[in-house]
Amino acid sequence: MKTEPHHTASHGHLVIIGGHEDRKHGKEILARFVELAGGENARIVVITAASQIAEEMWDQYDQAFGDLGVRQRFHLPLASRQDANDEAKVRMVAEADGIFMTGGDQKRLLAIIGGTALDAEMHTALKVRGACIGGTSAGASAMSGHMLAQGKTDLLPEKGAVSLAAGLGFLHRVVIDQHFSERQRLSRLLSVVAQNPYLQGIGIDEDTALVVERGRGIEVLGEGSVTVVDGRTMDTNMADIQERDTPELIDVRLHLLPAGSRFYLPTDDEPLTKPMSPSLRDFLENVTKRNPIS
Amino acid sequence: MKTEPHHTASHGHLVIIGGHEDRKHGKEILARFVELAGGENARIVVITAASQIAEEMWDQYDQAFGDLGVRQRFHLPLASRQDANDEAKVRMVAEADGIFMTGGDQKRLLAIIGGTALDAEMHTALKVRGACIGGTSAGASAMSGHMLAQGKTDLLPEKGAVSLAAGLGFLHRVVIDQHFSERQRLSRLLSVVAQNPYLQGIGIDEDTALVVERGRGIEVLGEGSVTVVDGRTMDTNMADIQERDTPELIDVRLHLLPAGSRFYLPTDDEPLTKPMSPSLRDFLENVTKRNPIS
Repeated sequence: MKTEPHHTASHGHLVIIGGHEDRKHGKEILARFVELAGGENARIVVITAASQIAEEMWDQYDQAFGDLGVRQRFHLPLASRQDANDEAKVRMVAEADGIFMTGGDQKRLLAIIGGTALDAEMHTALKVRGACIGGTSAGASAMSGHMLAQGKTDLLPEKGAVSLAAGLGFLHRVVIDQHFSERQRLSRLLSVVAQNPYLQGIGIDEDTALVVERGRGIEVLGEGSVTVVDGRTMDTNMADIQERDTPELIDVRLHLLPAGSRFYLPTDDEPLTKPMSPSLRDFLENVTKRNPIS
Repeated sequence: MKTEPHHTASHGHLVIIGGHEDRKHGKEILARFVELAGGENARIVVITAASQIAEEMWDQYDQAFGDLGVRQRFHLPLASRQDANDEAKVRMVAEADGIFMTGGDQKRLLAIIGGTALDAEMHTALKVRGACIGGTSAGASAMSGHMLAQGKTDLLPEKGAVSLAAGLGFLHRVVIDQHFSERQRLSRLLSVVAQNPYLQGIGIDEDTALVVERGRGIEVLGEGSVTVVDGRTMDTNMADIQERDTPELIDVRLHLLPAGSRFYLPTDDEPLTKPMSPSLRDFLENVTKRNPIS
């Protein structure tokens, strides 16, 4: 039975998860994903392309979304770019209310779906149909236009230690890292921001989600926090130091947004009740911006 | 043979070390401490009161300072407040060009010397005679007026997790943590700054020193970096959350000063060549301030 594409009044949501979200107990984050996709009657599609154990991944989410009462849940296995241009598979995205990307390797995910018909259909789903797109770990990193691809730092930021690649571009002017506090990745994120101050860095803890309502605002859910580092007004010697050296960084802005944090853009009906940090305001505008289909 | 107290043109230096400084090979930091104390002819006194293995500590520094050519080196063992008020022991400080405080427990150090004649004589040494005071690990934390005394956080800052105590007060409006990157203590330092935004937080890595020339400027030496977190202009919900909750922190300023960083206050002869971050400027003024003897 063919289901008509779901149209809602929503401008689309992103549920950006730092990995290891609870899939067995309270499932707070996955429950919110389902709710934002339309609830128990939503059609949920799970993209496992980031993972090399796609079936195992699917089993976990099939169980979790089933426990949450979702009846229409579908695995979208993608082993190749041919798959990601396959008409039947693209139609699954076109008919989905919620699209969830599992963990694995974001480079693998992008190598398979980047620039395909399925990629374009995900943008349509989010931006035209107001669908909800979720991603955890690699699926979170993949969401921004500039994607943190790989690289490690030791204890301190290092020039040249981290490389970027092209992500899916559901949001821009940011770069996303995951497993953030657990894997002590502030130095990695600062390495990216020091080299690319155009990008605000977002670090998302495990079992924690940054929920973005496009055009409206953000909320942090789960057990940990979201860390934002903003280097746009910093001063640094990054241009003058050698590869692997630690840069001097002056005036990085840092925001720590624990679960429960909510920020919304002002509207005519609901103006700001108190001044908002310009850095945070820019962050809010960057991530909620209703970019055209790219 | 009585040596006359050493008088120099210096306004006094502090060598604030994040622990585990090299004592066996290049000894960059200890060599600078000796140089700032006056070189091979300096009288160096080592205060081991923070440690419960004072003799072992002394052996290490006796060896290291001896290797650096210092002939007049003295152990100042202090087991009690009586010791710290003992005239002969206080005279050792009065005659010292360099006073070095080892690691151990800063609470133990302060319980023994805080408010004693020896404490007062250290202030005179620094501020009147221009001596050099060094401290590593506990000896570093002890230097500020508000001292990070104890407490741990898990991955994220927590309300009420860290307690302060009264330190020696060689510098004010700051709080010092050590073993900073190695023990991943940013969340601990942010916990302090979130509760006490009057204080700028200083995190010093192992084998790394923040060298303060009073009235003049700072320099970072060694293998790691000094991290400064400034919460004075931040916005936070700290006052409204429960103990052990993670605070929301908006607009914390972060500076990363790797080894080699140098900042000096402008003088008539040497004005600033480029604008300095107000936050960094305040930090510089706080730590270099020539406070009166307290």
